[in-house]
Amino acid sequence: MAKEPKQLADLFQDTLKDIYFAEKKVLVALPKMAKAAENEELQAAFEKHHGETEGQIGRLEQVFEEIGEKPQAKTCAAIIGILDEGKEIMEDYKGSPALDAGLLSAAQAVEHYEISRYGTLSAWAEQLGHSNAATLLNDTLDEEKAADRALSELAETLVNLQAEEA
Amino acid sequence: MAKEPKQLADLFQDTLKDIYFAEKKVLVALPKMAKAAENEELQAAFEKHHGETEGQIGRLEQVFEEIGEKPQAKTCAAIIGILDEGKEIMEDYKGSPALDAGLLSAAQAVEHYEISRYGTLSAWAEQLGHSNAATLLNDTLDEEKAADRALSELAETLVNLQAEEA
Repeated sequence: MAKEPKQLADLFQDTLKDIYFAEKKVLVALPKMAKAAENEELQAAFEKHHGETEGQIGRLEQVFEEIGEKPQAKTCAAIIGILDEGKEIMEDYKGSPALDAGLLSAAQAVEHYEISRYGTLSAWAEQLGHSNAATLLNDTLDEEKAADRALSELAETLVNLQAEEA
Repeated sequence: MAKEPKQLADLFQDTLKDIYFAEKKVLVALPKMAKAAENEELQAAFEKHHGETEGQIGRLEQVFEEIGEKPQAKTCAAIIGILDEGKEIMEDYKGSPALDAGLLSAAQAVEHYEISRYGTLSAWAEQLGHSNAATLLNDTLDEEKAADRALSELAETLVNLQAEEA
């Protein structure tokens, strides 16, 4: 019995439920962020990531299937806090030229939370011998990293735009 | 007047207060995580990062000084949520061989939040012409990235250790 790392399997499942909850919250938040954004490229970036998030939720459901479990969400206090900060920015900076910069920073905080979780989950999946699950989680990890890079580039573009407008 | 991006300066200050709050919370959490950790290397990593966090708080105070403001903290919902998840793991996985893996994942979620914030803040400082502040924020960003990489390496070491013990 001692050879079976049962507890890591539990931790893997708990964390899977946590990110499943988080992605569903993000799916609801992204259209609101797209609507709030002033810059069209930023709107498009949020809309694109909304589509990616749907795909990521689908992959998580495949991971649950791979480990023989039904998809289940578990309240993720971290994403609630991160998204609350984003909401605060939308309220406090409505009509401000800094709104888009604030939305970008909120989105990057979300991306980094997800990068950290998918990095952990894909390592654990590998360790637990779930290689298909590890591949799925790694695909999403790559997508999140690319989304974060795209947001960083967009942040630079916005800076230059604002400098021109000033 | 229109040339002065006042609102970005406000956003910069708000986010500075947010990460100042976050670092102070992390400073309190790290010794608890070190105490909870089973593996000595992990304990040492948390203790080392506790010292780094003190230095990072000092740098933030220098950044406040650079922009002519007194250091001030503003409740950061994100770090509260992230640290709450860490506390939950400490409680749920006490005595479990997966505890250290859980603590590592919680610490990496913290690191990634900080990486996202310092990345944003250092870009804004540059944009606002606060080049000394940008350097200070960038130093911390590099430190956080190094801490995250060290935790990833430690996670691999722990996996191998557990495989040997099993």
